[in-house]
Amino acid sequence: MTNMSDLDPVHFEWSCADRIATIRLNRPDRKNPLTFDSYAELRDTFRALVYADDVDVVIFASNGGNFCSGGDVHDIIGPLVAMDMKQLLNFTRMTGDLVKAMIGCGKPIIAAVEGVCVGAGAIIAMASDLRLATPDAKCAFLFTRVGLAGCDMGACAMLPRIIGQGRAAELLYTGRAMTADEGERWGFWNALHGGDQLNAEARKLAGRLAAGPTFAHGITKTQLNQEWNMGLEQAIEAEAQAQAICMQTGDFERAYRAFVGKDKPVFEGN
Amino acid sequence: MTNMSDLDPVHFEWSCADRIATIRLNRPDRKNPLTFDSYAELRDTFRALVYADDVDVVIFASNGGNFCSGGDVHDIIGPLVAMDMKQLLNFTRMTGDLVKAMIGCGKPIIAAVEGVCVGAGAIIAMASDLRLATPDAKCAFLFTRVGLAGCDMGACAMLPRIIGQGRAAELLYTGRAMTADEGERWGFWNALHGGDQLNAEARKLAGRLAAGPTFAHGITKTQLNQEWNMGLEQAIEAEAQAQAICMQTGDFERAYRAFVGKDKPVFEGN
Amino acid sequence: MTNMSDLDPVHFEWSCADRIATIRLNRPDRKNPLTFDSYAELRDTFRALVYADDVDVVIFASNGGNFCSGGDVHDIIGPLVAMDMKQLLNFTRMTGDLVKAMIGCGKPIIAAVEGVCVGAGAIIAMASDLRLATPDAKCAFLFTRVGLAGCDMGACAMLPRIIGQGRAAELLYTGRAMTADEGERWGFWNALHGGDQLNAEARKLAGRLAAGPTFAHGITKTQLNQEWNMGLEQAIEAEAQAQAICMQTGDFERAYRAFVGKDKPVFEGN
Repeated sequence: MTNMSDLDPVHFEWSCADRIATIRLNRPDRKNPLTFDSYAELRDTFRALVYADDVDVVIFASNGGNFCSGGDVHDIIGPLVAMDMKQLLNFTRMTGDLVKAMIGCGKPIIAAVEGVCVGAGAIIAMASDLRLATPDAKCAFLFTRVGLAGCDMGACAMLPRIIGQGRAAELLYTGRAMTADEGERWGFWNALHGGDQLNAEARKLAGRLAAGPTFAHGITKTQLNQEWNMGLEQAIEAEAQAQAICMQTGDFERAYRAFVGKDKPVFEGN
Repeated sequence: MTNMSDLDPVHFEWSCADRIATIRLNRPDRKNPLTFDSYAELRDTFRALVYADDVDVVIFASNGGNFCSGGDVHDIIGPLVAMDMKQLLNFTRMTGDLVKAMIGCGKPIIAAVEGVCVGAGAIIAMASDLRLATPDAKCAFLFTRVGLAGCDMGACAMLPRIIGQGRAAELLYTGRAMTADEGERWGFWNALHGGDQLNAEARKLAGRLAAGPTFAHGITKTQLNQEWNMGLEQAIEAEAQAQAICMQTGDFERAYRAFVGKDKPVFEGN
Repeated sequence: MTNMSDLDPVHFEWSCADRIATIRLNRPDRKNPLTFDSYAELRDTFRALVYADDVDVVIFASNGGNFCSGGDVHDIIGPLVAMDMKQLLNFTRMTGDLVKAMIGCGKPIIAAVEGVCVGAGAIIAMASDLRLATPDAKCAFLFTRVGLAGCDMGACAMLPRIIGQGRAAELLYTGRAMTADEGERWGFWNALHGGDQLNAEARKLAGRLAAGPTFAHGITKTQLNQEWNMGLEQAIEAEAQAQAICMQTGDFERAYRAFVGKDKPVFEGN
């Protein structure tokens, strides 16, 4: 296992307190676009998180009033236009690997979204486990606007499961912005909070998860992904096995002892 | 085939009228917790329902103002804490088998939920085909509160398909209660009814289904589960086969004759 | 490749302008029922659309204030009652083939629904990519009313992904009409428009898609279906490949050049 709380990344901000890591893209003047470098460093960071012993929850937060403006037109789209197929596939696989790393990192990720959240930014929000936003959040899967398909980094698979097939189709075909209110009604945002409240609410939620049975949270995350395309009977058997594992943790016994003692359980994540 | 209307179970109440069976857990003083014995007897009952010739619809109702408080802390969680892996897996498979038996029983199940509906109780509601509730219904997938993962009895597979992936993730990670209003907005509850109306509405809905083409209802239930993780083309072929079977029933001809005679069809379930 | 704008079908109306084809069933006096012949001709038309070079978007519109009343009782249900299993399966496979042809036609389909939209009519709306309706639209999956199961032409697979498993189960078991307001709240209708606005809004939406990167739209449609039952990791790899293909289109470069030139891209669909 490794420690990650003191990580010092080059292409985004990283802070860690109370076992909660917070990521912020660090180009707020340009609404936080992604670059080849930040994609790669984010991917590597989420991959490393699997083995991190000192981080239980990740907040992917906004910076300067915006979440992320997606792949930078000059830094990313320009070079892509000149690439051959091998290079293009290297790129699309790298961006897909970021999503794979996020869903495979073993810790809950909370997106805390203000303002612009478009393109790959919308994907990062989508690939998070929980999503909070401000009423001014503008989320758009705008790949179609740059001549591309809606199938970017898993969007055709994941977005329909979050907001329904028909609404996802509309957003992916038209590239139009989903308003914060629509996003809440449709189940994309778990809750809306004012801009002065958003970070505090994200911390509160993260704190709640970090205080929980974090080993079990990791299993919840694993199973939500693992059962994605299982049959119902297979999924039920998979959960019987996964939950039996959790029943051998100390946290399960701690909860029982606390209940019997009319106390509040203190979980230790093992 | 067997008759089940006169079933006399030990660990829950059972009544049957007009081909509609009603189940109520029978420890209302403790908000109807489940025990090893009631789990097993419920499982066996739903398994037997496949072959029951005198029951067409099941109502899983509340008792004493509450639906079900889940696995009893003293009767279930205490013993689990002391078990080895083989015994634990026996238990989690048995609880999973209850859900498998519910989804495989061949008859529509209507949950009629008042008050507390938590833990395995929330799972029983989730595994039902249709769900009615009172405005005071409190539904929580609170496994995380006892140190466990959200993946219990199929929740990570089924809950996202009912209320969406993001909302399901929130309920499973936090264990927080879903209010009745949220549940209606999110599609968990098909409708809310006042406490004095709930049972009558559940009976009305059950009566409507029992008067319907019950053989075809069984095929609807089969296909909703069967197509869970099929490809679209496979699912369409599966429905072509399943519906062709239904087109050879008397009920299909009865409906046609009634229509031609400007009459209301009387279905016989064959 | 073929041209289809001047198609002259026998069993439905067809018009084409600005690369947008509009289909209207042509028996408005009877609320536009389907017949064996119109099923077959629709199926063949959507199959041919894959290769059509002059149509980018299809609107499936209403006629005389109604969308479609489903399979005609006299022309379809009567004959079905007299058929043997081989003939029945021929029929159910043909209707399923209409849905397969719609989801496989490579162009976005917009349903523009007024009034009655029931049975196979509801299926045609469901199998479209985007769905607009008037506030008086009445959509019912009423197969159960004629003694059949809800599993018709893919409904048990597709409807739950659009409106959620619980709501789909209710509509399929009871056959009751979904009101336009419910349909909007539940994500079945992308938007509601007054009867005097519906066609204009459908044209506007179609025009927006036809002006978009239509090759990429075809890939979006392909992936939405293709990833239906893939695992998450497979879906992300599938999108890496599919999007890399789109990155080699002229439309991607056109968008980039337009952006750099502070211009609006003009897409050519290649």
